[in-house]
Amino acid sequence: MIYFDNAATTRPDAESVSAALQYVQDAFFNPSALYREGFAVHKAIEEARRQLLRLLAPQGRHALLFAGSGTEADNQVLFSAARRGNLVTTEGEHAAVYEAAKELGKRGVEVRFAKLEKSGAVNAADLLAKVDAQTALVSVIHVNNETGAVNDVAALARAVKTKNARTLFHSDGVQAFGKIAFSLPAEIDFYTISAHKIGGVRGAAALAHKKGTALAPLLYGGGQEEGYRSGTENTFAVMQFAAAAKKRLEALPQHYQNAERLRNALLALLDKEFFTPLSDPSGSPFIFTVSARGLRGEVLQHMANERGLLVGTGSACSSRNRYSRVILACGIEEKMADGVLRLSFFGNESLEEAEKAAQILNACARELYAKTR
Amino acid sequence: MIYFDNAATTRPDAESVSAALQYVQDAFFNPSALYREGFAVHKAIEEARRQLLRLLAPQGRHALLFAGSGTEADNQVLFSAARRGNLVTTEGEHAAVYEAAKELGKRGVEVRFAKLEKSGAVNAADLLAKVDAQTALVSVIHVNNETGAVNDVAALARAVKTKNARTLFHSDGVQAFGKIAFSLPAEIDFYTISAHKIGGVRGAAALAHKKGTALAPLLYGGGQEEGYRSGTENTFAVMQFAAAAKKRLEALPQHYQNAERLRNALLALLDKEFFTPLSDPSGSPFIFTVSARGLRGEVLQHMANERGLLVGTGSACSSRNRYSRVILACGIEEKMADGVLRLSFFGNESLEEAEKAAQILNACARELYAKTR
Repeated sequence: MIYFDNAATTRPDAESVSAALQYVQDAFFNPSALYREGFAVHKAIEEARRQLLRLLAPQGRHALLFAGSGTEADNQVLFSAARRGNLVTTEGEHAAVYEAAKELGKRGVEVRFAKLEKSGAVNAADLLAKVDAQTALVSVIHVNNETGAVNDVAALARAVKTKNARTLFHSDGVQAFGKIAFSLPAEIDFYTISAHKIGGVRGAAALAHKKGTALAPLLYGGGQEEGYRSGTENTFAVMQFAAAAKKRLEALPQHYQNAERLRNALLALLDKEFFTPLSDPSGSPFIFTVSARGLRGEVLQHMANERGLLVGTGSACSSRNRYSRVILACGIEEKMADGVLRLSFFGNESLEEAEKAAQILNACARELYAKTR
Repeated sequence: MIYFDNAATTRPDAESVSAALQYVQDAFFNPSALYREGFAVHKAIEEARRQLLRLLAPQGRHALLFAGSGTEADNQVLFSAARRGNLVTTEGEHAAVYEAAKELGKRGVEVRFAKLEKSGAVNAADLLAKVDAQTALVSVIHVNNETGAVNDVAALARAVKTKNARTLFHSDGVQAFGKIAFSLPAEIDFYTISAHKIGGVRGAAALAHKKGTALAPLLYGGGQEEGYRSGTENTFAVMQFAAAAKKRLEALPQHYQNAERLRNALLALLDKEFFTPLSDPSGSPFIFTVSARGLRGEVLQHMANERGLLVGTGSACSSRNRYSRVILACGIEEKMADGVLRLSFFGNESLEEAEKAAQILNACARELYAKTR
């Protein structure tokens, strides 16, 4: 089996899963418990928090709270920071930001969606034009999960703050953290990361937030995470997240280079008669999206599946609609949008896997084309 | 080590953890992915859902959605169902309901807290007196997590609906599910259960909700859980939850009887000179709360910890305040509230452990009393 759907989820890193299992079987105690065994678990979680901050925001300007999922972290920021005035975001957001923004719209917040470039990156001029004196929050995805386009969120945040110093800036970094070298700048108030896209298990994500920036809870209760996020801490998932992230960041230069090789191999080997690349070469090498014009992406996906290749068709989360909202927002016509396939890498795959994948997809496209003529 | 703090969290059942690990290491696929491996994981989750419904609500009147924690499930109900009119709840709620209710109060919803009996059960007359034509939601904890008092939520829900047929009824069943025999009646619209209190891992909880009853999401995004709760499903936690719950329900008659034996042994053996039971004999046998009048519960807890006995002091979640809000609401004076210890069982502990625990606590109380004289 060749697994090229790592933007949907990754196989959790076995070593850090094994290590973290001690927090399921032995150190299972409630981190709020006031006996030694509880304190020890609490301490371990605090060390995991520091670990992630060292990897993401070593300058010490940000704090970090654990959440149950990237969706939860994204939602918390939007529902906290965009209660009045207007919210500026983009047409390229993951559903966790996009749908939360639409919900805010229903609740009376004015929501403005900035347009995309063909690559899937936000049109910076359009984004900035939408920011005004009433803009409470700007939210821009760091790496587009459907095309791999990278937004220069540091520069965008600076430009937004120049226009309105009181506007808060959030970025969903779920497809960026552990995949592109990045250190959180002062201008970014909130930044979402998630475990399961980089070899972590599900159940752990985190929201980095600038110290001193107001943030309301989304979950109220026992006051865990300094009151920002109530609910008994998921020690296993948190500990495994920190370990997997550390390992991932150490391997990143290699994985990044290797992902470039995989992408380039596919770019070279996929039959140009059928496949048009949609991802821009300047984007994240971990996501390579193509369109088999005039063919159905889902049918190709199914055929490839039968031959042992697993790929995505746009975001797994939005798999209910025929066309991807984000792909259409890139200005791709429907005939192209229908044939979208997303190949996404962990970074440790072999070149042979990429070559095999290209062969499989070429054969599938040829057969499907012959059948549908 | 004797672990008598199972109301805070339980050691996850090893067998179901082992079995569910296949969803971390092998079947790690995104359940929304449109290839065979994704469908298979999706199917497994649906089977886990049916499993839990068979255990909790076999009559088929309820659906069930997975959440990340009991806190999240409780919050979702309150923020969905108590948007207007008034909310009636009790002074005996877990912080997940109590703090969410207080937040709703800040947002302009009128919140009414019904008084408690000395046992920690709600005063039914006071609760019903607070329900009127404007009551949108009533939320009553099923088993009080600090005293073990059992509220007859089926009868309360019926009485509430007799008074106002449009009022929705929620119960936090986190300390009840898998601990007392119960089948969800038609009158209860929402019911929260959690994995980690019955041998499950953290990261999985569920909200049973009556089919046809409106429920708004708390988390917006990819539309998982039929749109009720977005975020990639935590397959490992969900599968382990269902397996642990099944095992737990099968063992419940035995565990319940054994918990009664443990509680009775402690009741008989704890030195009456120091310890006054606060839990009512009619309550859940899994929670036995006592007060060492005039002594500090935390100091006793610490001393017992040194001797290998782990017990709680009221809810671990509210460990920041000197006195437990719920214990005070039971009408317990501060001197008694200061000395509260909660002993809570999984149900499979030996009588010898209970005897040893009583010896340890008696010795600690005697020494502390001598020291503080």
